[in-house]
Amino acid sequence: MPVISRKGLSMPSSPIRKLVPYAEDAKDRGVDVIHLNIGQPDIKTPQVALDAIKNNDIEVLSYSRTEGTDQFRKKLAAYYKPFGVDVTHKDIIVTTGGSEALSFVMGSIADTDDEIIIPEPFYANYNGFAIAAGIKVVPVVSNIENNFALPPLEEFEKSITAKTKAILICNPGNPTGYLYKKEEIQKLAALVKKHDLFLVADEVYREFAYDGLEHYSILQEPGLENHSIVVDSVSKRYSMCGARIGFLVTRNSSVIQTALKFAQARLSPPTYAQIASEAALDTPQSYFDDVIEEYVERRNVLLKELSRIEGLKVARPQGAFYCIVELPIDDADDFAQWLLEKFELNGQTVMVAPAAGFYATDGLGKNQIRIAYVLEKNRLIKAVEILKEAIKIYSQQ
Amino acid sequence: MPVISRKGLSMPSSPIRKLVPYAEDAKDRGVDVIHLNIGQPDIKTPQVALDAIKNNDIEVLSYSRTEGTDQFRKKLAAYYKPFGVDVTHKDIIVTTGGSEALSFVMGSIADTDDEIIIPEPFYANYNGFAIAAGIKVVPVVSNIENNFALPPLEEFEKSITAKTKAILICNPGNPTGYLYKKEEIQKLAALVKKHDLFLVADEVYREFAYDGLEHYSILQEPGLENHSIVVDSVSKRYSMCGARIGFLVTRNSSVIQTALKFAQARLSPPTYAQIASEAALDTPQSYFDDVIEEYVERRNVLLKELSRIEGLKVARPQGAFYCIVELPIDDADDFAQWLLEKFELNGQTVMVAPAAGFYATDGLGKNQIRIAYVLEKNRLIKAVEILKEAIKIYSQQ
Repeated sequence: MPVISRKGLSMPSSPIRKLVPYAEDAKDRGVDVIHLNIGQPDIKTPQVALDAIKNNDIEVLSYSRTEGTDQFRKKLAAYYKPFGVDVTHKDIIVTTGGSEALSFVMGSIADTDDEIIIPEPFYANYNGFAIAAGIKVVPVVSNIENNFALPPLEEFEKSITAKTKAILICNPGNPTGYLYKKEEIQKLAALVKKHDLFLVADEVYREFAYDGLEHYSILQEPGLENHSIVVDSVSKRYSMCGARIGFLVTRNSSVIQTALKFAQARLSPPTYAQIASEAALDTPQSYFDDVIEEYVERRNVLLKELSRIEGLKVARPQGAFYCIVELPIDDADDFAQWLLEKFELNGQTVMVAPAAGFYATDGLGKNQIRIAYVLEKNRLIKAVEILKEAIKIYSQQ
Repeated sequence: MPVISRKGLSMPSSPIRKLVPYAEDAKDRGVDVIHLNIGQPDIKTPQVALDAIKNNDIEVLSYSRTEGTDQFRKKLAAYYKPFGVDVTHKDIIVTTGGSEALSFVMGSIADTDDEIIIPEPFYANYNGFAIAAGIKVVPVVSNIENNFALPPLEEFEKSITAKTKAILICNPGNPTGYLYKKEEIQKLAALVKKHDLFLVADEVYREFAYDGLEHYSILQEPGLENHSIVVDSVSKRYSMCGARIGFLVTRNSSVIQTALKFAQARLSPPTYAQIASEAALDTPQSYFDDVIEEYVERRNVLLKELSRIEGLKVARPQGAFYCIVELPIDDADDFAQWLLEKFELNGQTVMVAPAAGFYATDGLGKNQIRIAYVLEKNRLIKAVEILKEAIKIYSQQ
């Protein structure tokens, strides 16, 4: 039998996926499984986007333009303006989700065995895209004690080699919920200029900044034009994860020209989803105000409830809708499975994402989980109550 | 300034894309440009697919399942049955276009510097996906003299090294229009079994088989279960190129499990497009009968008209909707540009795809073009008339 590639063998399996059969078994037993594990918002997609699809008049569902239409990209450029990001449609390529934008960026800036530095914990799929492209992820550890703030620059300096091509951040962070301060971005900017690296920022949670804080994009930083590449997406912003529309944004025209060659190979992004996404750009500000208010309340409720669990540590999130929680247990993988397999409280249990999968360094995050607060408040309260009781019983075993 | 990857620099630019500005200039001058260069059918998308989108009742456009829903994949497995292909939904992963299926296959079966053998001329983007994955394409030359039939197995044997992981074919072929005979598939089957390789077939044009010939899928070949991987798509079958829905089909469960890890990294295929594609499976047979009849007529008209041009050679296509034409000129790249830049006949000209871009071997195909016969007959007749006059004038220069 012909053999699978080493690349394929080393591709990470989703840490959550392993738990899915246990969740299904629990549901089959009649247990109500509350999902704290997924980043799929329950918020309604803006009506203007849904309507655009229902009112489309396509007769031949043909290829769209590889980089997205001028009209769509011009509207996008206008969307960035109020954030202090000055780009034109020529600085934007429409992609099939932020995922594809990341793949294009990695292929455009790094060769086989080249290295990309990422503060950990990080979005697990960064590693998948890197492996697929033959690139090595080099982690720099950030810590729950300071809410996963930017690690000291010396840590980055120590990790930079002749093969380092870029530093990649997620801002605000999945899974950390950390919102980088302007000064942190400026430190990174100085670093990448000093070493002639790219700075790649996944800014798909841009709008989700709380406590009066403002998101500072790497595209706002002067003098970083040739270094900064933003990965963006409609998925979380408009609760349109299923559209699969993202963007690659950079004022470095060599990067655009190169990424465009990767884009041409796959012909075009999905047509229907582009129609919905272009329409979504007309979503009124009130939609976001309501959504942000809802998430802030959820976060506050979550933090308040979690604070009642003894021995538990939480990184206070100021953006996105995740937080990392350190539990008074040893093995979150085992605990997450146990929650689904052996535990229930009045017919309910919770599904959580073990955090070890968000670390590249072996052994880190083993007692941590990621919670996505994309559920309505009463269900969040119930979930934490279950978690509290479960920890007590699990610890006594 | 940080540098672009060597990978990015070596990604092929679309040979057609270079011509686009010239086509736009011609249109600006008021010239009617007849497109013989693109594979975008003018056929209407089945109403059942268009209606499914207009009648959708999505409120939260959420992620779909990574590999596509069981329901969709079960309907797909049923679709394959009448073709003698016996697969279940577990043998299928839904992808974002055939393009993504190809990327997943390449990543799953080949590592950096591994080799995949492809008869040339071949679909140019195979090379793009290979470069992105760090894989080397090794071409085996097929010839216009026998309509680009399978080259002798000795030619493949000569090209097999320790790094060879697969042979990739497109059946029926883009850009050749060649439909492999059952005996040719059986020869390839014996070869891949002998050398323990994968046999990958891009069968997106399955339905487009003419002259009473039947398509023979590599999935029909007994004993090839662990070797055969099919790449498929709704794009051409249902004139739904813009959906971006494809499939990876194999009974090798290791390949499925591995490809699934690549699929998980990008989360899910586009949701709206899956709704349309699942509905498209209910397209009545009469739709295909009409479409095939139309393409056969177009092909016959095209061949008849082309036969009137002296010194021109055509590979007779028996599938798909392309054919390779050898022109009595030296440089099809220059000719294609000249057609758009300098030539017109009664206010019209044609845009063709120079064929050199479909060859991996330098210097081959320089006097060939690919014609896509996806236009209605009168416009095809007009296009060939223009081509005939253009060749005459171009040759006299």
